[in-house]
Amino acid sequence: MSAEPSLPNPAPRFGVWLIGARGSVATTAIAGSAAVAAGLHPPTGMVTETTPFLSCGLPPLSSLVFGGHDTVDCPLPKRAEHLAEGGVLPHGLPAAVHAELAEADRQIKPGGPLTGHDDPRSQDELIDAFAADIVAFVRDQDLAGAVVVNVASTEPVPTGDTLPPSSLYAAAALRAGCPYVNFTPSSGLHHPALAADAATASVPYAGRDGKTGQTLLRSVLGPMFLHRALAVRAWSGTNLLGGGDGAALADPAAAAAKNAGKERVLTDTLGAAPQGEVHIDDVPALGDWKTAWDHIAFDGFLGARMVLQTTWQGCDSALAAPLVLDLARLLLRAHTAGLTGPRPELGFYFKDPDPGAGAALGEQYAALVDFADRLRGAR
Amino acid sequence: MSAEPSLPNPAPRFGVWLIGARGSVATTAIAGSAAVAAGLHPPTGMVTETTPFLSCGLPPLSSLVFGGHDTVDCPLPKRAEHLAEGGVLPHGLPAAVHAELAEADRQIKPGGPLTGHDDPRSQDELIDAFAADIVAFVRDQDLAGAVVVNVASTEPVPTGDTLPPSSLYAAAALRAGCPYVNFTPSSGLHHPALAADAATASVPYAGRDGKTGQTLLRSVLGPMFLHRALAVRAWSGTNLLGGGDGAALADPAAAAAKNAGKERVLTDTLGAAPQGEVHIDDVPALGDWKTAWDHIAFDGFLGARMVLQTTWQGCDSALAAPLVLDLARLLLRAHTAGLTGPRPELGFYFKDPDPGAGAALGEQYAALVDFADRLRGAR
Amino acid sequence: MSAEPSLPNPAPRFGVWLIGARGSVATTAIAGSAAVAAGLHPPTGMVTETTPFLSCGLPPLSSLVFGGHDTVDCPLPKRAEHLAEGGVLPHGLPAAVHAELAEADRQIKPGGPLTGHDDPRSQDELIDAFAADIVAFVRDQDLAGAVVVNVASTEPVPTGDTLPPSSLYAAAALRAGCPYVNFTPSSGLHHPALAADAATASVPYAGRDGKTGQTLLRSVLGPMFLHRALAVRAWSGTNLLGGGDGAALADPAAAAAKNAGKERVLTDTLGAAPQGEVHIDDVPALGDWKTAWDHIAFDGFLGARMVLQTTWQGCDSALAAPLVLDLARLLLRAHTAGLTGPRPELGFYFKDPDPGAGAALGEQYAALVDFADRLRGAR
Amino acid sequence: MSAEPSLPNPAPRFGVWLIGARGSVATTAIAGSAAVAAGLHPPTGMVTETTPFLSCGLPPLSSLVFGGHDTVDCPLPKRAEHLAEGGVLPHGLPAAVHAELAEADRQIKPGGPLTGHDDPRSQDELIDAFAADIVAFVRDQDLAGAVVVNVASTEPVPTGDTLPPSSLYAAAALRAGCPYVNFTPSSGLHHPALAADAATASVPYAGRDGKTGQTLLRSVLGPMFLHRALAVRAWSGTNLLGGGDGAALADPAAAAAKNAGKERVLTDTLGAAPQGEVHIDDVPALGDWKTAWDHIAFDGFLGARMVLQTTWQGCDSALAAPLVLDLARLLLRAHTAGLTGPRPELGFYFKDPDPGAGAALGEQYAALVDFADRLRGAR
Repeated sequence: MSAEPSLPNPAPRFGVWLIGARGSVATTAIAGSAAVAAGLHPPTGMVTETTPFLSCGLPPLSSLVFGGHDTVDCPLPKRAEHLAEGGVLPHGLPAAVHAELAEADRQIKPGGPLTGHDDPRSQDELIDAFAADIVAFVRDQDLAGAVVVNVASTEPVPTGDTLPPSSLYAAAALRAGCPYVNFTPSSGLHHPALAADAATASVPYAGRDGKTGQTLLRSVLGPMFLHRALAVRAWSGTNLLGGGDGAALADPAAAAAKNAGKERVLTDTLGAAPQGEVHIDDVPALGDWKTAWDHIAFDGFLGARMVLQTTWQGCDSALAAPLVLDLARLLLRAHTAGLTGPRPELGFYFKDPDPGAGAALGEQYAALVDFADRLRGAR
Repeated sequence: MSAEPSLPNPAPRFGVWLIGARGSVATTAIAGSAAVAAGLHPPTGMVTETTPFLSCGLPPLSSLVFGGHDTVDCPLPKRAEHLAEGGVLPHGLPAAVHAELAEADRQIKPGGPLTGHDDPRSQDELIDAFAADIVAFVRDQDLAGAVVVNVASTEPVPTGDTLPPSSLYAAAALRAGCPYVNFTPSSGLHHPALAADAATASVPYAGRDGKTGQTLLRSVLGPMFLHRALAVRAWSGTNLLGGGDGAALADPAAAAAKNAGKERVLTDTLGAAPQGEVHIDDVPALGDWKTAWDHIAFDGFLGARMVLQTTWQGCDSALAAPLVLDLARLLLRAHTAGLTGPRPELGFYFKDPDPGAGAALGEQYAALVDFADRLRGAR
Repeated sequence: MSAEPSLPNPAPRFGVWLIGARGSVATTAIAGSAAVAAGLHPPTGMVTETTPFLSCGLPPLSSLVFGGHDTVDCPLPKRAEHLAEGGVLPHGLPAAVHAELAEADRQIKPGGPLTGHDDPRSQDELIDAFAADIVAFVRDQDLAGAVVVNVASTEPVPTGDTLPPSSLYAAAALRAGCPYVNFTPSSGLHHPALAADAATASVPYAGRDGKTGQTLLRSVLGPMFLHRALAVRAWSGTNLLGGGDGAALADPAAAAAKNAGKERVLTDTLGAAPQGEVHIDDVPALGDWKTAWDHIAFDGFLGARMVLQTTWQGCDSALAAPLVLDLARLLLRAHTAGLTGPRPELGFYFKDPDPGAGAALGEQYAALVDFADRLRGAR
Repeated sequence: MSAEPSLPNPAPRFGVWLIGARGSVATTAIAGSAAVAAGLHPPTGMVTETTPFLSCGLPPLSSLVFGGHDTVDCPLPKRAEHLAEGGVLPHGLPAAVHAELAEADRQIKPGGPLTGHDDPRSQDELIDAFAADIVAFVRDQDLAGAVVVNVASTEPVPTGDTLPPSSLYAAAALRAGCPYVNFTPSSGLHHPALAADAATASVPYAGRDGKTGQTLLRSVLGPMFLHRALAVRAWSGTNLLGGGDGAALADPAAAAAKNAGKERVLTDTLGAAPQGEVHIDDVPALGDWKTAWDHIAFDGFLGARMVLQTTWQGCDSALAAPLVLDLARLLLRAHTAGLTGPRPELGFYFKDPDPGAGAALGEQYAALVDFADRLRGAR
């Protein structure tokens, strides 16, 4: 995977700077990118590796170089071992891609501020420091560009004027001249204090809140009911999950941020919010595997009462990681194609897409394929 | 709902000639049309009553006159009582629309040939007789036109040259100059012996095999997996239902016809047939209510094993009836607009749509809305 | 159903005094008792009508006379109509048993104190007034005895010394010399301030918290895991329900009382509380029908991770009413047999049975059959 | 685990002779016995390791020596690797117990006759040969006794007089003077031609058809409905599984044998067979993991229609293996205690228990604990 600087015109390499770089999603994305690039696994779950995305100039997986910010210390190779024990990564994979994990781990900076700690630096100083880390990464690794992707734990909904960490990192991305993706429900670029910066950004950005499991389902089932003129009366859901995500979402404020996205998809696709609640339960015994049960009560012709129930058993990290790689590649390419500002064409990936995106997954997919065609033309 | 012939320019009335006119679907469609026209119920489940279909010249429900063929004797008002006892129709509805049911019942002819009986008439004589019934209905009721819709029990897959009843009725529709819809998996116009007639038909037609419950779901879930590049490894299904449909589908040959449609949707949307079987069990205790369980085993990134299960509890007649009314109105309108031949634009409604229709429900819905726009322009 | 006082030795009649006499459970019990006594329906769900309970001297359904306390005004015949509209009672039943419903409705007293209102009467005066109502019912109706059964909405867990209404009624039952059943999670006789009265009661009593749906299931599944030495790691549950019960349990304090019973059954049968939460969601669209989903993560041999999921769709009133009739008959009989104090033999019916009852449903059933044998011998 | 013959009074060792000794269940039992004996895993799923079975003289796991018959060649250590890849055994376990697996593999004889092959030996000669293998095992390993347990693939229901292989092995167990357990639905000792031998056997035996997943559930849910006087109208089930078992049960004759046991449990516990079918689908993608969906339609009070659905996701081998170890220990102990003939006390373990066993799991558990007490007393 290393470029050979002595040869003329080496293939350009691109940086993927992950906020939360030692978390489950980041670790899975880094390990998986290496494994797929090496031909150890097919690119299952990566939309950008399917036919409609060929030849549109996306940087190949082998050209990606990973780094990022994280406040935890557990090195990536060890984190990968834990994920393999929990069945998220295949046994044997951490050993097979140990070199790539160790290399990425060396590119991780501590970031900050730690939640609940006093940091003597002002907000602006923090943004500067983060941006400097990113710029140094691009320079030291001799990269043709880099994208910043937020995959850190969900923050509580912010109150007050202070920028939450996710927004500090988002501002740092802009300051470093890098495209930005917010894969979480946290504020990121959506914070009102960043509205002006976002509006005039010279880089493309997208987000927020990746649509991986229960909400992915909702984004195809909602339109089905709508298009068939079936009246959804109540849509209730329960999510059971363990791992770090389960613990983080046991915080009601974080859960509220997450649930807002889930409900938005229903409202966007059905036209109105049905009755029903969504629960997110921390069940440590389930580890990184999530079970989501949905119960949808709807009326048919002449008021006939009907019910659809769905049970989704998946691994969030394994669902999110290939989408993170997709988004990184698409935004890196959009940047080289000179596109800037919000990218509603990537609404396919998000619960809370940028304004202008459709709500139904099918519609969003068509827009994504159109976007690929546009990138192909821009080559 | 009666026209007043003494007045100048009475609103035109249109016939809906149902094959299987005393079955559950037909009874629900006739009773429901009357109930919605009278304002007793909202038009839940009728796509043609939603905004995108306004002002495109569809005949109003109050203009529809029902008749048809059936080989059973139980009159419609009594059949409706049975459906109300089974929870398919609201209590009180059969009494409220008794007049309309009794009137439609008077327009039902015996049809034939009865399965397992010798009928002295040749195939051509039978087609002539059926066509004459339809022509007489249009003439006697002073209708501006009529559409023939097959909602009879599923036939076994035909073997040999003899036209099955569904194909005799389909040929009769063409001979009577009426648009034709096949809402069942039976042969209808798809029989090879009718290929030439279908190719040169001067009327529009559509079919086959209405997509109501489990397959409707599959037509949105299949594209979801495909678009997300998730590898479906096995898709298994079990359907439990009672009523006449349950008994009819307990015949393996009829079940084979039905299952072919369910599998076609998966193959069409996934690109290949996954592992897994589909069972249709006759469970008399469930009456007209169906429960369909689907189990989908799929792989995510790096081979992570995931599962989606769905349980659909619905009433097939209540799901089918509004679609039958939709299709009758759309084809009556297409006929007056001068359209002929197969209508892939109606693929939204079918498991086995006419050639040229997309496979994903979202795509099919877009095509249907385009069709409505075209009809609006044709006015 | 009326006794004929002029004849010698008329069959004795027994009172069933219901707290919450105009609620769903009470209305279903009264209507159902009349319907079964008249031969309109089989006694499905009534354990006391099965073989092991024959000839043990239980009062026949036709001997039961209903009355009670309630603070709402909607008369029983009208309440029954509402339940029929919601599918809880069969259509036609309210009309068929109108006389019995109207007669029972005349025996309902207003009770009180209304929650949130000031009542000028002291607690002791309230108990006296309630007891006087019950005594008058027995005397006026010329009854051989009466049992008091609490089927009112679940109260919040009480804090402080004030007796909650359920405990006032329980004290009134003792003061009136009547057996007492608490079918709800409310305090009833379990309030510490009534401990001395309960300990020296000259009547039999039982409770609390009827075991009807999700918890019934748990009481057979818990022992299954225990007996097979399978390690339950997490047991999560979500209940969706509408109707009055859904609204009442939307109050977190009432839900807490209800959930305590559900968790007690798990702890009692598994020996320890597993991980996992229980949610009770008010979903008005579901009316009186409840859906309960349980997800049980357990380990098998060598730590193999397995999952059982259950989905229960039932009508709580239809599940509770026959058990209320069972309990009324059993306690009336126990009273005539001279039994007093808590009846752990009736643990089969309760989430929180009287001390000495087993936890597994099979064990509890065996104890109930033994109790029937004892009553038979006592004749 | 090796005895030291030079020391006085070494602890006695006991043989477990497995028919199908290289199958999934056998491999899991052998590997698991070694792992639990070595303290690598807790004895989850082994009922005989729970409190009620202490001190009743069961041979400790460390005293068990494994051997058996099988017609396949894949050695146990390799088979264990495959099971670990499929998630049946923990990663690392095959290596940790390699020595024990290799030692057991050396004790496996080819058995026969191979299905579909001509074997020149007569039935009696085959029985003699099998019995000689078992006797040699006991003698060469210096064992205090041995039990024969059938865990081979399910045979088709036999037709005609020829003894199927399972019955040849059962006869060989008797001829070798060994207790016998039939953990499969195959004929074993139940063949009519063996009735006389079974009736006069001087060894204890038990069977048939281990109750591990869906049927285990049915054996607690059936009694629940019965005891609550709820009317089960239909009980339908679908099983999805891959692995060798899935392929074997794709043979309709083998599936028929398996299904007979599942239906027997319903009939035994409910008193009559409800409507509904059971499907067993071979889904290779699921490997050794099984998903079983059950749909139970039942009536409550006044005919209220209710539904319970269960979804069981488990690994059959991991469910069966600890029960095989339980049964081996219990029958070895019963033999030393001088018990002979059928053991209905072990009905807890079987779909088709020996005559005299109760049908409800709770009842069967009580009988098993009584049996343990009897064995304790017999010491």
